[in-house]
Amino acid sequence: MYRPRAWILNIGNELLIGRIVNTNGAYIARELTLRGVRVERIIVVSDSLDEVATTVREAIGRADIVVTTGGLGPTDDDITMEAVAAALNLPLVLNTAALGMVREFYHKRGLELTKERIKMAYLPKNAEPIPNPVGAAPGAYIYYSGVHIIVLPGVPSEMEAMLKIAIEKLDPFLPKLCIVEEGITVTGIPESSLASLLRKASKLCSDCYVKSHPKGHEIDNPIVEVKVLASAPDCDTARSKATRVLDALRKYIGGI
Amino acid sequence: MYRPRAWILNIGNELLIGRIVNTNGAYIARELTLRGVRVERIIVVSDSLDEVATTVREAIGRADIVVTTGGLGPTDDDITMEAVAAALNLPLVLNTAALGMVREFYHKRGLELTKERIKMAYLPKNAEPIPNPVGAAPGAYIYYSGVHIIVLPGVPSEMEAMLKIAIEKLDPFLPKLCIVEEGITVTGIPESSLASLLRKASKLCSDCYVKSHPKGHEIDNPIVEVKVLASAPDCDTARSKATRVLDALRKYIGGI
Repeated sequence: MYRPRAWILNIGNELLIGRIVNTNGAYIARELTLRGVRVERIIVVSDSLDEVATTVREAIGRADIVVTTGGLGPTDDDITMEAVAAALNLPLVLNTAALGMVREFYHKRGLELTKERIKMAYLPKNAEPIPNPVGAAPGAYIYYSGVHIIVLPGVPSEMEAMLKIAIEKLDPFLPKLCIVEEGITVTGIPESSLASLLRKASKLCSDCYVKSHPKGHEIDNPIVEVKVLASAPDCDTARSKATRVLDALRKYIGGI
Repeated sequence: MYRPRAWILNIGNELLIGRIVNTNGAYIARELTLRGVRVERIIVVSDSLDEVATTVREAIGRADIVVTTGGLGPTDDDITMEAVAAALNLPLVLNTAALGMVREFYHKRGLELTKERIKMAYLPKNAEPIPNPVGAAPGAYIYYSGVHIIVLPGVPSEMEAMLKIAIEKLDPFLPKLCIVEEGITVTGIPESSLASLLRKASKLCSDCYVKSHPKGHEIDNPIVEVKVLASAPDCDTARSKATRVLDALRKYIGGI
């Protein structure tokens, strides 16, 4: 099965000094993986116009889908739209639809447009704005010589809502997949002891998403829910992938 | 002040499918930042020999320090040492000192060496093994045409202990810095409301590490400790950087 390749670029100095952990990268990676995309790189890069433009150029040369996060705000260090425009040799222009979104956001809060707020409506020429249901800054979707470029903000709640919209746009280009979730509840084994068994079992399915959710006390009363999300062109195959992981896990647990 | 540039490469499919969040990247970024290093990239790449070798080649062309994590174990998909050797055009050889470390690890547990265990003692030629105080696989330190390459395992507890050893090796090449920590306790403001003020204040110091630790109940009895780690060539400057962030924070809090 053809699987489009993706690069994820997370832009922000706060990530490079280790002030925050790159949860956005993992979130996007999981969502794309579950839609049949092969994520090949997650790259954190600084709020530097040159660095971002260089990295976007590298990405469009080697991926079918490029998703960026961060650097869409009203301040001078928010340079992502400018960097993407530079990487694609496109001018940065005031996008009427994006301006409408920004105006509406502030109008609802009784605020006027300012130069800083209008800045958020400048997108690379011919980009399609992605509405932001949570915050002020629109994102952008650009189809450029065979590559889908999705530009999202860095605030996780905004990014998550907008990624959903972006993935709908990508839908015609994504593999047709059935996604299933199956789970078991494991009692009497602390999550810390279960971890290596989970790791081993999850290796049986490279594109399953395996996660454990502790529900009881780690030592006194360990209860852990294990969920496996699996995808395949048809639902039977997807289900059998998930089942294989869970069956292996049951076997390993029986061996303790 | 001269600041060496670092690239961090985190190797592992589990990161690219979003099964785990790249906490190693943030941990290493913080430790290096506090030692005066400018971290320019954090890159997640798959367990593919070609992909890792390509990324290591890119990194050594553009950084003074390259730190990798992951892919040092006994199984076939642990390819990091081989990929680093390929990127540097060095042969992969059985390192006697590394073999001693691996032998000792298993001997203490009453286990013999096997082919899979011996594999972990193969390092690029002339690499210096980094002992692993927690697990089995040694790391490696390689000085290659002006670039310091540090190869660490992916298990966070092992990586953290070995990064400390590696940073001691780098010490002569790192800026001489004084690192100070200062803190305040904020009562009556939930951490969620404090967040934007912290973000604003921490922007006053690009190489400070600002962190909040909630100590009371988020709503009923909010108590948050705020710590600022700052570094500078001399301690007075470091202290004044931390103070500037905390003074600004006090001012913003007073304005609520």
